[in-house]
Amino acid sequence: MTDTRQESDSLGTIEVPTDRLWGAQTQRCLMNFPIGTDMMPVPFVRALGLQKKAAALANKDLGLLDAKLADAIAVAAGEVAEGKHDAEFPLPVWQTGSGTQSNMNANEVIANRASEMLGGTRGSKEPVHPNDHVNMGQSSNDTIPTVMLVSAVQELEGKLLPALDGMIKSIARFREKFGGVIKLGRTHFQDATPITLGQAFSAYQAQVDAATGALKQQLPRLSQLPQGGTAVGTGLNCHPDFASGFCDHLSSLTGLPFSPAANKFVGISAHDELVALSGVLNGAAAALMKIAGDIRLMGSGPRGGLAELILPKNEPGSSIMAGKVNPTQVEALTMVCAQIMGNHTTVTIAGSQGQLELNAYKPVIIFNVLQSIRLLADATDSFTARCLDGLKPDPDRIDTLLKSSLMLATSLVPHIGYDKTAEIARLANDEKLLLKEAALKLGYVTEEDFDRWTDPSQMTHPADS
Amino acid sequence: MTDTRQESDSLGTIEVPTDRLWGAQTQRCLMNFPIGTDMMPVPFVRALGLQKKAAALANKDLGLLDAKLADAIAVAAGEVAEGKHDAEFPLPVWQTGSGTQSNMNANEVIANRASEMLGGTRGSKEPVHPNDHVNMGQSSNDTIPTVMLVSAVQELEGKLLPALDGMIKSIARFREKFGGVIKLGRTHFQDATPITLGQAFSAYQAQVDAATGALKQQLPRLSQLPQGGTAVGTGLNCHPDFASGFCDHLSSLTGLPFSPAANKFVGISAHDELVALSGVLNGAAAALMKIAGDIRLMGSGPRGGLAELILPKNEPGSSIMAGKVNPTQVEALTMVCAQIMGNHTTVTIAGSQGQLELNAYKPVIIFNVLQSIRLLADATDSFTARCLDGLKPDPDRIDTLLKSSLMLATSLVPHIGYDKTAEIARLANDEKLLLKEAALKLGYVTEEDFDRWTDPSQMTHPADS
Amino acid sequence: MTDTRQESDSLGTIEVPTDRLWGAQTQRCLMNFPIGTDMMPVPFVRALGLQKKAAALANKDLGLLDAKLADAIAVAAGEVAEGKHDAEFPLPVWQTGSGTQSNMNANEVIANRASEMLGGTRGSKEPVHPNDHVNMGQSSNDTIPTVMLVSAVQELEGKLLPALDGMIKSIARFREKFGGVIKLGRTHFQDATPITLGQAFSAYQAQVDAATGALKQQLPRLSQLPQGGTAVGTGLNCHPDFASGFCDHLSSLTGLPFSPAANKFVGISAHDELVALSGVLNGAAAALMKIAGDIRLMGSGPRGGLAELILPKNEPGSSIMAGKVNPTQVEALTMVCAQIMGNHTTVTIAGSQGQLELNAYKPVIIFNVLQSIRLLADATDSFTARCLDGLKPDPDRIDTLLKSSLMLATSLVPHIGYDKTAEIARLANDEKLLLKEAALKLGYVTEEDFDRWTDPSQMTHPADS
Amino acid sequence: MTDTRQESDSLGTIEVPTDRLWGAQTQRCLMNFPIGTDMMPVPFVRALGLQKKAAALANKDLGLLDAKLADAIAVAAGEVAEGKHDAEFPLPVWQTGSGTQSNMNANEVIANRASEMLGGTRGSKEPVHPNDHVNMGQSSNDTIPTVMLVSAVQELEGKLLPALDGMIKSIARFREKFGGVIKLGRTHFQDATPITLGQAFSAYQAQVDAATGALKQQLPRLSQLPQGGTAVGTGLNCHPDFASGFCDHLSSLTGLPFSPAANKFVGISAHDELVALSGVLNGAAAALMKIAGDIRLMGSGPRGGLAELILPKNEPGSSIMAGKVNPTQVEALTMVCAQIMGNHTTVTIAGSQGQLELNAYKPVIIFNVLQSIRLLADATDSFTARCLDGLKPDPDRIDTLLKSSLMLATSLVPHIGYDKTAEIARLANDEKLLLKEAALKLGYVTEEDFDRWTDPSQMTHPADS
Repeated sequence: MTDTRQESDSLGTIEVPTDRLWGAQTQRCLMNFPIGTDMMPVPFVRALGLQKKAAALANKDLGLLDAKLADAIAVAAGEVAEGKHDAEFPLPVWQTGSGTQSNMNANEVIANRASEMLGGTRGSKEPVHPNDHVNMGQSSNDTIPTVMLVSAVQELEGKLLPALDGMIKSIARFREKFGGVIKLGRTHFQDATPITLGQAFSAYQAQVDAATGALKQQLPRLSQLPQGGTAVGTGLNCHPDFASGFCDHLSSLTGLPFSPAANKFVGISAHDELVALSGVLNGAAAALMKIAGDIRLMGSGPRGGLAELILPKNEPGSSIMAGKVNPTQVEALTMVCAQIMGNHTTVTIAGSQGQLELNAYKPVIIFNVLQSIRLLADATDSFTARCLDGLKPDPDRIDTLLKSSLMLATSLVPHIGYDKTAEIARLANDEKLLLKEAALKLGYVTEEDFDRWTDPSQMTHPADS
Repeated sequence: MTDTRQESDSLGTIEVPTDRLWGAQTQRCLMNFPIGTDMMPVPFVRALGLQKKAAALANKDLGLLDAKLADAIAVAAGEVAEGKHDAEFPLPVWQTGSGTQSNMNANEVIANRASEMLGGTRGSKEPVHPNDHVNMGQSSNDTIPTVMLVSAVQELEGKLLPALDGMIKSIARFREKFGGVIKLGRTHFQDATPITLGQAFSAYQAQVDAATGALKQQLPRLSQLPQGGTAVGTGLNCHPDFASGFCDHLSSLTGLPFSPAANKFVGISAHDELVALSGVLNGAAAALMKIAGDIRLMGSGPRGGLAELILPKNEPGSSIMAGKVNPTQVEALTMVCAQIMGNHTTVTIAGSQGQLELNAYKPVIIFNVLQSIRLLADATDSFTARCLDGLKPDPDRIDTLLKSSLMLATSLVPHIGYDKTAEIARLANDEKLLLKEAALKLGYVTEEDFDRWTDPSQMTHPADS
Repeated sequence: MTDTRQESDSLGTIEVPTDRLWGAQTQRCLMNFPIGTDMMPVPFVRALGLQKKAAALANKDLGLLDAKLADAIAVAAGEVAEGKHDAEFPLPVWQTGSGTQSNMNANEVIANRASEMLGGTRGSKEPVHPNDHVNMGQSSNDTIPTVMLVSAVQELEGKLLPALDGMIKSIARFREKFGGVIKLGRTHFQDATPITLGQAFSAYQAQVDAATGALKQQLPRLSQLPQGGTAVGTGLNCHPDFASGFCDHLSSLTGLPFSPAANKFVGISAHDELVALSGVLNGAAAALMKIAGDIRLMGSGPRGGLAELILPKNEPGSSIMAGKVNPTQVEALTMVCAQIMGNHTTVTIAGSQGQLELNAYKPVIIFNVLQSIRLLADATDSFTARCLDGLKPDPDRIDTLLKSSLMLATSLVPHIGYDKTAEIARLANDEKLLLKEAALKLGYVTEEDFDRWTDPSQMTHPADS
Repeated sequence: MTDTRQESDSLGTIEVPTDRLWGAQTQRCLMNFPIGTDMMPVPFVRALGLQKKAAALANKDLGLLDAKLADAIAVAAGEVAEGKHDAEFPLPVWQTGSGTQSNMNANEVIANRASEMLGGTRGSKEPVHPNDHVNMGQSSNDTIPTVMLVSAVQELEGKLLPALDGMIKSIARFREKFGGVIKLGRTHFQDATPITLGQAFSAYQAQVDAATGALKQQLPRLSQLPQGGTAVGTGLNCHPDFASGFCDHLSSLTGLPFSPAANKFVGISAHDELVALSGVLNGAAAALMKIAGDIRLMGSGPRGGLAELILPKNEPGSSIMAGKVNPTQVEALTMVCAQIMGNHTTVTIAGSQGQLELNAYKPVIIFNVLQSIRLLADATDSFTARCLDGLKPDPDRIDTLLKSSLMLATSLVPHIGYDKTAEIARLANDEKLLLKEAALKLGYVTEEDFDRWTDPSQMTHPADS
C-alpha cells in the first residue's frame, strides 16, 4: 500500500503516490493506458527536460516569467535532462496521440520539483504551476514534435553517425591489410570474373558512406522546430519572439544548431521529416543487410561452404553440436535490419494518418524512430568490434577457388569472340576439364596466349589502353 | 565492483557475477551483444522453463536421465516457468539468430539451481550439467522454435482471445441499448442512405468476430512442436519416443493440446506458421484501425464535427486548450495497430530469410509476434473498458443530420427512376432546398407519396416483398 | 478523329466514340483519371459479367425484370464473362474508390449490347436502361465487393492452387528419385550434422503444403457475398429474396459454392477477408523465397560454390561472360515474392482505411490481390517446370563435403560428453586435421568406436531406442 | 501459324518469328518466363536505346568500333529511344534478376536493325553482332543499372517534379483567393483554436515543397552511372576511357548531367540509391495521403459532414443513390499513395537481397520505382486539375462552425488561468450553453473582456508583444 496525496485536474480529483513528483494528469494517464511494456524512450524524456529549460529561460528573457520561478524551473528541468528523474516518467508509448500526457508529465514533475526548491508543497501547484508557468507559451502540440526532433538529432549525432564512421574505418583497415588478395567474383551467386578483396569491400565502404551522407542530409530539416506554434501552429498565447529565444537557448544547451521552423503548422499536423529520416534508416538497414549477408556467405564453412573469410569466434555456437561457431554478429545485425524495415512501415503509416491540424500518432513515430537509430547504432558498433575488426581472409582457399573458375574465359572474348569462348566454357563444364584443357582441345587459342590472357591479376581492371 | 566466479566453456574462461545463476555462455552473450534495450520477452522466458521441465520429465520417463537429477531440474525449471528467476534472463533480442544463447541461459540457470538443490556448487556443472542433463536430447534448434510456439499460443489463449471476446460483448451491449437509433449512412464520407446504429455496429462486431475466428484457426498449426528434431530435424542424439513424451508433459503442464510436428525439419528451417499468425494479427490490426477510426469520426466535435457519438471523458486533453477532451483510447489503439502492421513487415522479412536447415531470425520473429499479441490484447481491453463501454449516441444530433440528408431520395428510384431522382437531388443541393421542396417543385411526386416513400425507418431494410 | 455520339448523365452531356458500347459515365471516368497504365484486371471484368448475368436472372425469377429484357441482359453479360468485350472495359485502377465507374461501365456496355439485340439504339438507354435494368436491385457498393470476391476465388481455384499442387508433386518426385542421398546439413550457413536430400526437401514440401492448406482455409469466407446489401448494407431498393437467388445463379454459372453473407454491412465497409487472403499470399511468398533461395545456394558454383545441386540450363546467362548460366527461375520467383510482400503492405493499408459505411480503396485492393495470385501462380508453374523438374544432385560433390565435416563429432556427445567433443572439433579445426585424427590424437575414443559412432547414415534419424 | 527463322545461341538453336527484330536470347526468355502481364516499363526500354547509342558513339570515338557499324548502331538505337520499336521489347519484368535478357533484347533488336540497314540479313549477326558490337565494352551488369538510373532520372525530371510543382502553384492560388477565411482548427479531430484557410493550406504547400526538395536531393546520386564496370565492376574487357566518353554522349543526348560513378562495384551489387529514391517517393505518398484526406474531411457532407469545402463535381457518384457526388480524385490519389507505400516495401526487400557482386532483383526494383514515379505524377496532375483547382470554401458554414466552438476559450487562459478556463468550457459543454453564457454565469470575466479576448481574428497569430 502506497501513501498517496490527493490532486485534481479539470476532470476531478485523483490519488497520487506521495513520493512521486508527477501529478494528476500523469497519474490519470498511467491508469488509463495499461498497454504493453514500452515506455516513452529515455532520450525523448531527457530532451523534454531540455525543452522545458530552454522555454523557461526564453520566457524569462521576455519578461513573461518571474525570474525566480524561471530559474527554479530551469534547474528542475536540467535535472530531467541529466537523467536524474527518469523514474518519474512512467508513461507508456500507447497513450494519447499528441503525447499531451508526456508533456504534462514533464510539466508536473518540473513544477513540483521547482516548487519544492522554492519552499512550496508537492501537488499544490504553488508557487510553480505546471500549465501556467512550466508550460507557458507552449502547447503539447508544438512541444512534443519539437522534442521528437531534438531527441532524434541528438541520437543521430551522438550514436549512429559515430557508429557508421567506425564501420567505415574498419572496412578501410581491412582493405589496407587484405585488399590485394584476388578472389573469384560471383554474380547470381555463380562464378564470375575475378575481383580483389579490396574492390569487393570498397562496395561495402561506399554503401556505408552513402548511408552516412544521406543521414547527414536530413539534419538541417530535422533541426527546424515548430516550438512557438502552440495549439495549431498559429502561435496563440505565445510571444512572437519566444520561438527564436527558445531555439537560441536550446542550441546553446545542446551545442546543436536548432532554429524556428518557417512554417509551424506543418510541424504539428505532419511529421514528414521523420518519415523521411525513417526512410533513410530503412535504406541503411537494407545496405547493412546486404553487407552482413555477404560476410556470412564468404565465411560459410568451415569445410562445406565458401570459407574464403574467417570470422572471429565469439562464443560456442551450439548446445548440441560441440565445437560449432556461428556468425552471430551477422545475425544480430541482420535481425536489427529486419526490425528497422518494419519500424519504417509503422512510421510511414503513422505519418500518413494526420487529420487536419494534428498528426495524432506522435508517440509511435518517435518510439520507432529512436528505436531504429539506437538499434542500428548499437548493432553496427558490435558488428564492427566483434566481427569486422577481426575478419581475415583464407588466402589458400581463395586462390584454389579462383583458379578453378571457368569464368576466367571472359578475358578471351575480346580475342576470339563471345561465341567461341562460350564453347570453350561449355566443354570444360560438361567434361569437368580445366578451362585451358578445353581451350586447347578446341584449338581456339595457343597455350601461351591462354596463359597470358587469363592471368587473374590482369582481369581486375579495365583493358590496358 | 561485483564479486565474480570463473567459469569456462569451449572458448575459454570467463568471469561471472557470483550472485548470478547463469553461466559462461550467458555471460559471454551478455558481453557480445550490447544492443538496444529489448530483452527476450518474459512470456518466452517462462515458456522456456516449461519446456525444460517437460524435457526433464520425458527423459526421466525414458530412463535416460537419473530420477534425482530429473526431479531437481523439473523443480528448478518450474521456478523459471513461474517467474521466480526472470532477472536471471538478461539476454537481448539481438543475439544469435537461433536463440542458442537463450537456450543456454536456461540450461545454465536451471543446472546451477538444480545442482545447488542437490548440494552442488554454482558453476561446477555438477551434479547437473547444463548441456548433458538440462539440454539432454535437445538442441537450441528444436527447443527455441518449440518455446516460440508455446509462448505464442499461451499469450493468444490467455490474453488476446479474451480481450477480443470482451470487445465483441461490449459492442453487443451497445447494439442492445442503442441499436434502434436511425442515423445517416455515409459512403465516400458523403451522405448516403440511412442505417441504424445497430446495423453500423454489427459490421464492427462481424469484423472482430472474424478476426477471432482467424486467430483460433491458427492454433492447431501453432500447437505442433518441432521438439525432438534436435540440430537439423533428424532427431540425432534424441530418443525416438522423446517428442511424444515431451508433448504429453507439456500439455499437462499448460492445459493446452500440444503434439509433435509431423515434419521437424520445417519447424527449424522456417517459421511459416508464425508469419501466418503475424498476418492474422496484421489483419486484426487493420480491422481495429477501421473501427476505432469510425468512433473517432462519429465522436468528432463537440460542436464542429459529426458529434453523433459521445465518448467517455478520461482525461484533460490539452495543456493549453482548457476544457478540451480527446478520443485518446482511439489514438492508443490506432497507434498499436500501426505498430502491429510494421511488426508484420519485420516478421515477413525475417521469415523469408531462412537458409538451408535453419532460419536464423528466431529472436526477432518471436519478439515481434509476442509484442503484437500483447499490444493488441492490452489496447483492446483498454479501448473496450474506457471507450466502448461508455459510448453513447446523441439522438437529437443524429436525427437532425438524418433529416437533412438528400440521400433519402434514393428510395424514390424504384418509383420514378434513377434519372428523375437525380434531378431532384441536384436541385435541392444547388438551391439549398429541402428534398421535399425540390421534389414537389419538379412535380415528380405528390407530397403524400414523398412522405411515405422517404420514411427513414422504411429505408434500413430490403424492400417489402 | 473518332466519330462520336452524344450521351448524357446527371452531370450533363458528353461525347462517346460511336463504335464503343460504353456510355457517358465510362467516358467521363476515362477522361477524369488519366493515371498510369494499369487497368481493372481482366479476371475482375469477366467476373463482373457473371455478376450482371446472375443478377438479371435472379430479378427475372422474382418477376421484377421483364423476361425479354432479362434474357437479353443475360446474353450480353455472358459475353462479357467470356471475354468478348474485354476491350470495352478501359477504366484504370486509379478511379473512384468504390469502383462505381467500373460497375457503370458494365451496366452501360451490357445495356447497349442488350438494347441492340432487342432492336434499340446504342446510347438510347432503351429498351434496356443501365441503372434501372442492368443494375436493378444493386448498388456499386455491394456489386463491386461481390465481384472482387468472385474473381479472387476463381483465380485461386483456377490458377494458384493447381500451381502449388504441381510444385508439391515435383518435390515429391525429386524426393523419390534422390531422397536417399546424405548431405551435409547447414545451420547458420555453417556446417552441421547430416541430413538426407529427402529430408531437406520434405521441409519444402511441408511449406508448400501448409501454404496450400492456408489458402484453402480462406475459401469459405471469400465465398460469402455482400450482394443484396445495396448502398450501405441495408438492402434498400432490393428484393429480400434477391441475394439468395443471385448466389444460386452465380454458383451454377461458376460451379463454385457462393452464398449470401450473413452480414452485408461489413462486406461493403471493410475487406478484411481480402486483407486476410493477402496475408496468406504474403506467407506463401515468404515460404517460396526461402525454398528458392536454398536451391540457389545449393546450386551455387559451378566450381566456386556449394555445387551440390545441378540446375537446368535454360538460357545463356551473360552478355559478356560466355558460358555462364544462372539460376534465373529462382530469380524470377524471388522477385515475384518481393512483389507480393509489397502488395500486401498496400492491401493492408488500403484495408485499414475504410470510413463509416464504405471502404473506398476497393480497386487498389483487388488489383493487388489479383496480381499477387497471378504472379505467384505463374512463377510457381515456371519454377516447377523449368527448375525443380530438372533438378539433379551431384552425388560426388555432396559426399566430399559431407565427409569433410567436423560436425560429425556431434554423435560423439552422448558417448564422451559435450566438453570433450568440443575439444576434438576445435583441435581439428585449428590444425586442419580430419576429425578422426583429432579424436585419436586427444585419445578420447578408439578408432573403432569413432568409425561406428560417426557413420553419417546413422546420423539422420533419432538414436536407436 | 507464324513464319519463323532459326537462330542459335550458346545453348542451341531456336525458332524466332520472321517478322521480329529480336533474336535467340529474347525468344528463349519469352518462352522461359510466362509470368504475369507486366513487361519491362516503356521508359526503361527507351533509356536502353539511349544507352546503346551512347555506347556505340563512345566506342567509335575510342577507335574500338568501326565507324560504319557504330553509326548504324547509333541510328538503330536512336529509333529504340524514340519508341519506334517498343513492340520489339516483349520481355516480362519477371525474368533473370540481372535483366540480362532485356540487355540482350536490345542488343539483338539493334544488331538486326543495324545489320539490315547495312545490307545484312536479320538473324545473321552480320555485319553487326549483338554481343561483339552492340554490347561492346559492356556487360548486362553495368548496362542494366545504368539504364535503371537514367530512366528514373528522366521520369523524375519529365513527369513527377513538374506535377508536384503544379500542385504547389494550385495551393498557392487557393491561398491567395481564400486564405483570409478564418475557420475552426481541429486537433485529434476535435474542435481546437481558430486557423485561417491560408494557414491550413500553407502546411500542405510546405509538405509538397519538402517532398519536391527531397526528390531533387536524390538527383546527383542517381546521375552517377556504373557503366564501364562490366561484369563485376572491375571494368574487364572495357576501355578505361569508355565510361567518361559514354557519359558525355549520354548527357548530350538527354540534356541531363550524367557522370561515371566513382565506385562501379557498388552500382552493380547494390541499388541503395534507388531504395533511397523509393523512400522519398514513399514519404511523398504519406504526405499526399494526409493532404488528400484533409480535403475529403473538410469536403464531407453535403449536409451531414463538415461541409467547409466544396469540391468540383466530376461525375455521378452512385449507381443507386441518384444525385450523389463523391471525392473521387481524393480516392484515386490516396489509392495511388497506398500503392507506392507497398512498392516501397518491395523495393526495400529487393534492395537488401544482393549477394556478393550482384543484386539480382534489378527488374522488380526498377519496375516498382518507375511505377511509383508515374502514378504519383499522374495522380498529382489529375488531383490538381480536377480537385484542387476548383476547390472552394463555403464561408457561411465555416463561420457557423467557428462561432460555435468552445475552444475560443483558450484565449482566456493568459488572463484568468488554465483552471478557471477549463471550468467555463466544461460548463458550456455539459449544459449546451454558449461559451459566453458559461463565462458570465461563472462570473470569471466581464462581457466586454470576453468579447475582446475571444475575437477569432485575434487568435490566428501570436500574442501581440
